[in-house]
Amino acid sequence: MFLQLKRILVGQPLATSRLHHERLSKRVALAVFSSDALSSVAYATEAILAILILAGALATGLSLWIAVGITFLLIIVGFSYRQTIHAYPNGGGAYIVAHENLGPVPGLVAAASLLIDYVLTVAVSISAGVAAITSAFPFLAPIRIEMALFFIALVTVLNLRGVKESGTIFAIPTYLFIGSLGLLLLTGLYYHLSGGLPALRAAVPPPVLAEHTEALTLFLILRAFAAGCTALTGVEAISNGVPAFRPPEAKNASITLIWMVSILGGMFLGITWLASLLGALPNEVTHETVVSQIGRALFGETPMYFVLQAATAMILILAANTAYADFPRLASLLAKDRYLPRQFASRGDRLVFSNGILVLGLFSALLVVGFRANEIALLPLYAVGVFLSFTLSQSGMIAHHLREREPAWRRGLLINGFGAILTLCVLLIIAVTKFTHGAWAVIVLIPFMVWAFQKVSQHYRDVARQLSLDNASIPPTPKRETAIVLVSGLHKGILPALQYARALAGENVTAVYVDLDPEATAKMRQRWEQWCCGVPLVVLDSPYRSLVEPIARYVQQVEARHKDDALTIVMPEFVPAYRWQYLLHNQTAVLIKMVLRFQLGKIITTVPYKLEK
Amino acid sequence: MFLQLKRILVGQPLATSRLHHERLSKRVALAVFSSDALSSVAYATEAILAILILAGALATGLSLWIAVGITFLLIIVGFSYRQTIHAYPNGGGAYIVAHENLGPVPGLVAAASLLIDYVLTVAVSISAGVAAITSAFPFLAPIRIEMALFFIALVTVLNLRGVKESGTIFAIPTYLFIGSLGLLLLTGLYYHLSGGLPALRAAVPPPVLAEHTEALTLFLILRAFAAGCTALTGVEAISNGVPAFRPPEAKNASITLIWMVSILGGMFLGITWLASLLGALPNEVTHETVVSQIGRALFGETPMYFVLQAATAMILILAANTAYADFPRLASLLAKDRYLPRQFASRGDRLVFSNGILVLGLFSALLVVGFRANEIALLPLYAVGVFLSFTLSQSGMIAHHLREREPAWRRGLLINGFGAILTLCVLLIIAVTKFTHGAWAVIVLIPFMVWAFQKVSQHYRDVARQLSLDNASIPPTPKRETAIVLVSGLHKGILPALQYARALAGENVTAVYVDLDPEATAKMRQRWEQWCCGVPLVVLDSPYRSLVEPIARYVQQVEARHKDDALTIVMPEFVPAYRWQYLLHNQTAVLIKMVLRFQLGKIITTVPYKLEK
Repeated sequence: MFLQLKRILVGQPLATSRLHHERLSKRVALAVFSSDALSSVAYATEAILAILILAGALATGLSLWIAVGITFLLIIVGFSYRQTIHAYPNGGGAYIVAHENLGPVPGLVAAASLLIDYVLTVAVSISAGVAAITSAFPFLAPIRIEMALFFIALVTVLNLRGVKESGTIFAIPTYLFIGSLGLLLLTGLYYHLSGGLPALRAAVPPPVLAEHTEALTLFLILRAFAAGCTALTGVEAISNGVPAFRPPEAKNASITLIWMVSILGGMFLGITWLASLLGALPNEVTHETVVSQIGRALFGETPMYFVLQAATAMILILAANTAYADFPRLASLLAKDRYLPRQFASRGDRLVFSNGILVLGLFSALLVVGFRANEIALLPLYAVGVFLSFTLSQSGMIAHHLREREPAWRRGLLINGFGAILTLCVLLIIAVTKFTHGAWAVIVLIPFMVWAFQKVSQHYRDVARQLSLDNASIPPTPKRETAIVLVSGLHKGILPALQYARALAGENVTAVYVDLDPEATAKMRQRWEQWCCGVPLVVLDSPYRSLVEPIARYVQQVEARHKDDALTIVMPEFVPAYRWQYLLHNQTAVLIKMVLRFQLGKIITTVPYKLEK
Repeated sequence: MFLQLKRILVGQPLATSRLHHERLSKRVALAVFSSDALSSVAYATEAILAILILAGALATGLSLWIAVGITFLLIIVGFSYRQTIHAYPNGGGAYIVAHENLGPVPGLVAAASLLIDYVLTVAVSISAGVAAITSAFPFLAPIRIEMALFFIALVTVLNLRGVKESGTIFAIPTYLFIGSLGLLLLTGLYYHLSGGLPALRAAVPPPVLAEHTEALTLFLILRAFAAGCTALTGVEAISNGVPAFRPPEAKNASITLIWMVSILGGMFLGITWLASLLGALPNEVTHETVVSQIGRALFGETPMYFVLQAATAMILILAANTAYADFPRLASLLAKDRYLPRQFASRGDRLVFSNGILVLGLFSALLVVGFRANEIALLPLYAVGVFLSFTLSQSGMIAHHLREREPAWRRGLLINGFGAILTLCVLLIIAVTKFTHGAWAVIVLIPFMVWAFQKVSQHYRDVARQLSLDNASIPPTPKRETAIVLVSGLHKGILPALQYARALAGENVTAVYVDLDPEATAKMRQRWEQWCCGVPLVVLDSPYRSLVEPIARYVQQVEARHKDDALTIVMPEFVPAYRWQYLLHNQTAVLIKMVLRFQLGKIITTVPYKLEK
């Protein structure tokens, strides 16, 4: 039944030979790799305003200046990543760049922050996508958590099926989003120049909120800046995906990166400008997004407004989808390097890294539930990892330039050095200003993950050493076979096991029974001779009604007496006809097997007895 | 580590020989068996008022009349249970009485409703006990769910340890409760007669609530009556416990029952009278209980008030504790009759039915969390099961009288007949008036549970038939032993398994490997001859990267070719040194074993290879 459901959801298995890749044109690549970065326009401005409003409505006038600063940062980071593209034409994710140039630990720090980021990308993007929908249709607001979980489930299933890397599917929402935001900006510009700027009209009138004004300190401004830095999430995507471009790969990727930075910067500045012009502010009650407020004001409730909201929701869900490509790929890289359990490195039957996809879906769903699908509340967790990986990636490039000394390396060093210092400063700002708002969790989690990676890696290395055949010798053949058959009573189910044990060990077979009820034991002893073909029955006392302990003790005694024998524990086992019936059988058997196998290291043979009903 | 924790919490195991019972005097028995019934005084009046208040403050004047009706019902039910005591001196729970006299299905209906009731007894009593504490100390109100969970955990652990049936421990809170409630009534009476009745003073001033008045319909009055019927919960406890009394058991139990009914009736009427006199009403905001309001008014904030609240909390927790004796005992009876998995019938290492205790603790904790430790909200679920088991028990007694025709059977028939009709009517009233407030869940759950009981019973009977040795014959000795060794690669870990297989099956051994990576396979083939002692290696293709399917197919092919052989699947298995390392090993092995064992019914031998680090 589970398998049938899986087939319906996930589809028929695909053969390994069908693994292939498509090369992308610049225009399609922009759509494929930019959805994460561009979609952050949907919430970055709102994130800034949500902090500034704490110092009152006047303070929000600063938002445009903060946006200009962030755009400057964006340009620097963009230039830095151009360097990475040229240095790593095979794809230079932060993990690879930091690992190669700075050593394993920085590499693992980058990997940990990236994995956290991908989970947050899904949680934030899906929540923001749902917010775009509920802004247009406020009556859907009460079920926003359910909607978010539905979209996570949908994207998870689609990725488990293996989305074909068809660029056109990605192109539609991305260009629709760029187009409708562009139209929004032009409309705003037109109204501004013609002097007839319309007023905001809310979908649902907001209630009057109590004034709760903080002082406009430098700390608060830095906090607002840190909040806005989420606009930069996803900028690194192109540098990870260089091999997917048509040749010359590096050059095409580089040009696409410039396009992306320009569009992102323009849209972000534009939206922030419109928001301050119209006085759009985050609304904690109706949760209508700032972009929706602007759209409603400028377009009115025309079809164009709904196209804008639909495009926003679509590009945000697409952004979540990119994390579904990145997280499993990074997890599989880590698993291949033995830092994660190897299950993450094996492709499922649809050729995708199913385990990574499932883990990503699970964790992001937990975040969505925990934060009640509120993307603004999730953002403080987001930016730490992003800027940590930026900083490590840039620092790795510095080491790269110093070592390789390729042509024009001094200029590269300058760019990446500036980028590294700048992103480090921003990282510190984010860590300090957002520490109490959730960033602490990420700051605690990253070292823990790095420790766990190393622990796993150490274990795999230990195992490999222990399994090496270098000093191995063929184990000696045992003198004699001995068998102990564990019986739970005298019934048909034990006969095949007794038979098997006799075929294996001849006369050296004992049946063992634990006495929990003297009456039943006496009855069993009486009838034993008749049925059990001369196998002696040993009855063990159990004053404390435990089955496991007397058996374990007896096995150890037998072992000590016959050291050179090969001892096999034979266990009869019911095989029920229906799955729910497992609940009624073999519970104790599982416990006994665990102790015998894992504590005593015994050879265990299970002889099934099939039940028909 | 788990075992150590268990030892600290639960204590050292106890030998079976230490199972014994203490006989109780009437006075101690009253304390042991009445806590559930008497403690319902703490919430029954409030439950009535919570309904009447919907029709406005004036309607609450009816509460005393409703309490009189319920007391009348209590007396009838008490007389009915005297009959049961005399007819079932070995303890006549509703399950036994209904099962014996009315047949298996009514017995199972009674069992299902009792099991549900015991869970609700714990949830309601603990929540009400916490309400008694938070009424005295309002600053504890925010952690009331945590407190309730703490008490459930405490009672669970104490019962897992096996509370010695020491009557004195029970006697203190019970008599303290009776005493302090008695003093409260006397104080109230004194004030009333002297004309100086003090006014209510709330612990925290309640906010003004919006008037939300319903009409005072007959339906509402019946609803209030149904709500108050929770006062009767636990009345049957004495009739279940007759064997615990000193001889003459039936007579002593009967007298104790009369004491209990008198005390319960008196206290319930008294509290309801005081509540209406003082105008005490349920407070949805501060959640201060009605009893606490009365106590605060009459005693003032003197030590006596706090003694009253402490005694109330203690007897309520004691009431929860009685469910911890009853639920596991009933579950073990059902398991012995094969209606529940047999795990419920086995005594844990402290001589108690540990599984029943754990299940009870788990479900009641879930209810407490789900209903936010609000006992008044839980009550609508409570009464259905109580009155269903009353009705079935009385009906069973009717059948008993008609069949046995013991001396004075006509009088007994009259009493039980009246009791059965009355409790049936009340059951219908409760089911109808509380249906939408939660009773529906119980009404749905009971038939489902009965169905599940029967399903389990049918399965156990099927198994017993299939396991019977009546037509059994010793299985034929196989002609030849064959073995298939599943190998995951060429390493030290597979050598003992190969060795074992060769000792078992001589030349008839094949090693099987699934090709997931052509390179690794080629390398392995090259080195195979050197190490693997002439065992032929079969490499299976797996175009869909599955390990399970090619192996299952191959095993079936071999099976088909050698039908008369005994085929053993030998699986090498790592035994990690530390428990967390299991996560990194043997995941696929578990899946392969499940398919081979449960789908194909194969004999599987696991040969452990112990890792040192």
